[in-house]
Amino acid sequence: MAVTRETETESSQFTPNTDPSNTKDFSQALQSFADSEKVQLSVFSQTLQTPVASERRRDWVLNVPEPPGLLSKLKSSFKKTLLCPLENKIQCLGKHPVLALVSILNVIFPPLSWCKEYNVTKFRRDILAGLTLASLCIPQSIGYATLAKLDPQYGLYTSVIPPLIYAMMGSSRDIAIGPVAVVSLLLSSMIPKLEDPTTNPIAYRKLVLTVTFFAGVFQAAFGLLRLGFLVDFLSHAAIVGFMAGAACVIGLQQLKSLLGISKFTNKTDIISVLTSICKSMHTLNPYSFIIGSSFLIFILSTKYYLARKYKKLFWLAAMAPLLSVIMSTLLVFLTRADKHGVKIVKHITGGLNPSSLHELQFNSPHTAEAAKIGLIVALVALTEAIAVGRSFATMKGYRLDGNKEMLAMGVMNITGSLSSCYVATGSFSRTAVNFSAGCETAVSNIVMAITVLISLEFCTRLLYFTPVAILASIILSALPGLINISEAKYIWKVDKMDFLACAAAFLGVLFVSVEIGLLLAVGISFAKIILNSIQPGTEKLGRLPGSDLFGDMEQYPIATTTPGALIVRVKSALLCFANANFIRGRILNLALEEQDEGVMESANQDRVQLVILDMSNLLNIDTSSIAALEDLQNDLETNGMQLAVANPRWHVMHKLRLANFLKKIKGRVFLTIGEAIEACLTSKNMLPI
Amino acid sequence: MAVTRETETESSQFTPNTDPSNTKDFSQALQSFADSEKVQLSVFSQTLQTPVASERRRDWVLNVPEPPGLLSKLKSSFKKTLLCPLENKIQCLGKHPVLALVSILNVIFPPLSWCKEYNVTKFRRDILAGLTLASLCIPQSIGYATLAKLDPQYGLYTSVIPPLIYAMMGSSRDIAIGPVAVVSLLLSSMIPKLEDPTTNPIAYRKLVLTVTFFAGVFQAAFGLLRLGFLVDFLSHAAIVGFMAGAACVIGLQQLKSLLGISKFTNKTDIISVLTSICKSMHTLNPYSFIIGSSFLIFILSTKYYLARKYKKLFWLAAMAPLLSVIMSTLLVFLTRADKHGVKIVKHITGGLNPSSLHELQFNSPHTAEAAKIGLIVALVALTEAIAVGRSFATMKGYRLDGNKEMLAMGVMNITGSLSSCYVATGSFSRTAVNFSAGCETAVSNIVMAITVLISLEFCTRLLYFTPVAILASIILSALPGLINISEAKYIWKVDKMDFLACAAAFLGVLFVSVEIGLLLAVGISFAKIILNSIQPGTEKLGRLPGSDLFGDMEQYPIATTTPGALIVRVKSALLCFANANFIRGRILNLALEEQDEGVMESANQDRVQLVILDMSNLLNIDTSSIAALEDLQNDLETNGMQLAVANPRWHVMHKLRLANFLKKIKGRVFLTIGEAIEACLTSKNMLPI
Repeated sequence: MAVTRETETESSQFTPNTDPSNTKDFSQALQSFADSEKVQLSVFSQTLQTPVASERRRDWVLNVPEPPGLLSKLKSSFKKTLLCPLENKIQCLGKHPVLALVSILNVIFPPLSWCKEYNVTKFRRDILAGLTLASLCIPQSIGYATLAKLDPQYGLYTSVIPPLIYAMMGSSRDIAIGPVAVVSLLLSSMIPKLEDPTTNPIAYRKLVLTVTFFAGVFQAAFGLLRLGFLVDFLSHAAIVGFMAGAACVIGLQQLKSLLGISKFTNKTDIISVLTSICKSMHTLNPYSFIIGSSFLIFILSTKYYLARKYKKLFWLAAMAPLLSVIMSTLLVFLTRADKHGVKIVKHITGGLNPSSLHELQFNSPHTAEAAKIGLIVALVALTEAIAVGRSFATMKGYRLDGNKEMLAMGVMNITGSLSSCYVATGSFSRTAVNFSAGCETAVSNIVMAITVLISLEFCTRLLYFTPVAILASIILSALPGLINISEAKYIWKVDKMDFLACAAAFLGVLFVSVEIGLLLAVGISFAKIILNSIQPGTEKLGRLPGSDLFGDMEQYPIATTTPGALIVRVKSALLCFANANFIRGRILNLALEEQDEGVMESANQDRVQLVILDMSNLLNIDTSSIAALEDLQNDLETNGMQLAVANPRWHVMHKLRLANFLKKIKGRVFLTIGEAIEACLTSKNMLPI
Repeated sequence: MAVTRETETESSQFTPNTDPSNTKDFSQALQSFADSEKVQLSVFSQTLQTPVASERRRDWVLNVPEPPGLLSKLKSSFKKTLLCPLENKIQCLGKHPVLALVSILNVIFPPLSWCKEYNVTKFRRDILAGLTLASLCIPQSIGYATLAKLDPQYGLYTSVIPPLIYAMMGSSRDIAIGPVAVVSLLLSSMIPKLEDPTTNPIAYRKLVLTVTFFAGVFQAAFGLLRLGFLVDFLSHAAIVGFMAGAACVIGLQQLKSLLGISKFTNKTDIISVLTSICKSMHTLNPYSFIIGSSFLIFILSTKYYLARKYKKLFWLAAMAPLLSVIMSTLLVFLTRADKHGVKIVKHITGGLNPSSLHELQFNSPHTAEAAKIGLIVALVALTEAIAVGRSFATMKGYRLDGNKEMLAMGVMNITGSLSSCYVATGSFSRTAVNFSAGCETAVSNIVMAITVLISLEFCTRLLYFTPVAILASIILSALPGLINISEAKYIWKVDKMDFLACAAAFLGVLFVSVEIGLLLAVGISFAKIILNSIQPGTEKLGRLPGSDLFGDMEQYPIATTTPGALIVRVKSALLCFANANFIRGRILNLALEEQDEGVMESANQDRVQLVILDMSNLLNIDTSSIAALEDLQNDLETNGMQLAVANPRWHVMHKLRLANFLKKIKGRVFLTIGEAIEACLTSKNMLPI
């Protein structure tokens, strides 16, 4: 809204009527008053100098410096984002080599900045948080590996190396790194199209590791090239919808293990899954179902009832999954329920992460496809990690650098792909537990990683009798945290179009597939941008009564019209090929209507003679729109009206001048609406350029 | 640019310092002056009431009415564009049935509006123009039919029925309807992928007629649904590039006939065509080449030399093609050059347009594809017709209604598809001839159609010996008109990004294919809209010296900063998910830099305490951007600064209120930048909501 005051305008309207002597009297009176009170009178003195000032202002508008061209703009933005930081560091390295080295080390290894202040108290807290985290992490990791259609140990591997790397390079102090549900789902919904995990598990695993490598490379590249903004392309609303949809899909996938069904579809959409479940209902295993659902109730009740009622019992909620695993394993071992059809985890390969360098595939026919999946997974993983990291950083009052985070995530996943880990990122549920457990720094991640490593070395044999249904319960219990109904309600309240993107992501994921849901959300978000930018509307501006401001007459119902002039503003930010003709037509119709009304209502002097186009909100125009403006001026002229332009921005003014449009409207370009009214209606002196 | 005057602000800064009695004196002095001079003194009286006025203005900003929701907006726009015109007419029909009927007839048949004033003089001119038009139209139609890979008579058919229909329904008085080069090229480059015209010419023709039918249906539907703006989606720059590329491609295609080569590629891109010509160079027929090129020189020299030098000889340029046909036919007939390998037209089926209702195919496997091609052809044909129609309408000072034109074109092509015509539209070259020949109304089209019909009935046998090379010459001679180098230069000068779309369309058509060229141009045009709208930049605003306006400090290098405040504006129209985080970072960095400078340079009182975000240009925000603004306020607060918002637009204000953001910034929302500075810096009274 370009509200413009026009004190000078109104006052200058009467200046020509008063004879010089009186004006002098008045100015003398003012002067004496000012002297006596030692008051700033710039406003008043200006009022009396209006004709000169107005001329000077027109010069300001007309003689703007040339804006930077496309090439120089690209060059400077490249310099600013990539070269300058590097150059600064290199220069600094020459002058103060030690200081510079320290600052570079600080940049690459952010933990160095807090390690000086690290002490025993903090360490004790981190150990406690790390152990709590590990107790949640071990069952979740096994569960998510199953969700990603990998052997259980791959989930545990992913909870060892990536957290260690992140602890050295990442800047978040709260985030808990490891496998997460949504990424596991993404992998298991996209990669089986290339390799079937049931018939050829080794090829499938190799592909997963290759995708992990590519995801890491993309993430590191984004960080190095400072493309942090790419993460923002998944809008907040889209993420809310996507996460909720993914949670539902993951929940549906878990029904297989929970119900102990043997046959299950490979598709992820709700219709396929539900029909598949209905068809295989007769293979349901009641023991599996009873074990799984009773422990699910136990975990959920600790998490949503006990931990909320007694804040100090949060550790119980965090330990509940591990307790469930232990108790259910004992139960199955004692009752030998596995002989009654309860599926158990069986053998988990123990020991340290094996190297997987030889498993990466760069010459297979699927490499290009793997890179594409890697890109999608990289973006989704980054989006989740940065969203999690930022929200907890805000709570503790520190700030994350998106580019540095990306680099850390990238290095962590590249290293991970070489040591049998699949894509790791920041987990919503575990980060919350880490925060509640009172973690101080990323040391809690190191403690967790070491604990998981020890379990890998010594305890995998203990998990032989763990029922698969319990893993499903653990995953299911983490899902409600991904569904944010209150946020969806807020989005609905504030922005209906945003809600559309949110709902499209949700329904797309639920009814079609994970990729389609993502694509829909991104598509709708960008379509919204285009719609908003070229929305072909116009709004009439009016003077706010008793003041000298101009505002949208619908926004400010008290605004009044100026006799003889129609003041319009375009409702979009761009006047371009896609809306210029429509807007030209709208303005012309509006002007003709106003003219007719003016003729009917009152004397001829009030009929519209001037159409002022307020350009204050126009970011840019193109050649099509300049042609449309020329047409508009011609049409108005044949109907006895004139077009004037108020307040054009830099690039707009420059293009209008290049296109010789200023000559077409005889230089009727003004800094404010008020000046346009004054110059064209009051004094009738259409200034030539 | 939101330049804002703040007269009141500055004056109110001193008001609290003056004691009441003096203020009274001053206002009395003013009053007496006003009384004596009978002058409007609203400005001055207002100055003295500033505290009240300022409060009231904040109310204006804060208490805006609720903007219409998404649904009600859609409803009202649907009503406005579709229902209201209909309703008005129905209402009118009830009140004044005769008048309403006349107005409806006038709408459907625009010629009724000029037929009353039609007289013998005009009719004589129209006959002359129509005959001139026919002399150009007959050879061109045959040529374009060959270009579209149809038998020659289909071109002539297309010059009979469509012009007659258009003459009754169209509103342009100058446009010449018939087959055109670009549409013929489009058809012959897209349809052969479905049916081969050489091996199965009948199936190919059926498909062309089906595509024509679909194109007509789409055009009529666009007109009825008032989707006229769809034509604008091909930007001016894209059309310039596309036309030039198409002209080059058409020219290349004509080389086959001109050189008398027998083997030729089916592809249209320049590389395939040139290699194909090089390979078949040994089959070149020198007689064909000599006849074709000598008549090409004749036509071009009449058109570009004689007609330009002696304006009255334009009829010679218009007749030159027909003269060439007659002379070359005689030449071949007399010398029997066809026995020396000169290809001739041979038999053309004469007679009235046959019905082609039975040839339309709605059950074939290609129907869906035909509909898609129909849509593309419909849009390109409309774009050309409306561009041609508008430019000549502007010259004569009348206006075309895009929607009505679309309906007329649609009905004309549907009828055409039922009577053996392929897609017709307005031709650039023939419309110019029609205009130069002094046409008055669409009657010239009727005269032309009847002349073509008579030729079809009686003269087709005379064309038996017409060499094919002469048709190529006629098409080639029409091509320079499609290449507009000066317009391309103008686009380069005014808008580099527009030129990119233009160049992409040109190169895409030339080097890849017609569709890819179109797709590239549309893609770049829309990518430009997105880039412009989310461009993540900020600009610092400064006060213009000696005035009370705020402007971009780069656009107005004379602008100065305000001590203690940083005034910024976002360079894009939308603050949304795609740029909000980046902009948040930029504003924060800018504020921190300014603060550091302030601390170094001067006393503590000058350090930045207030960041004013001028929202006058923000069309819309979304939930992501509100979250970013909240983050920004938190970050600023931790650094001892405050965020204030100036001049939010309707929807922005509404969303800020819904999201409770106003509470977060303690109600620091102001109508102008000046008021924000005054309220927050001078008086330090942060107003609670």
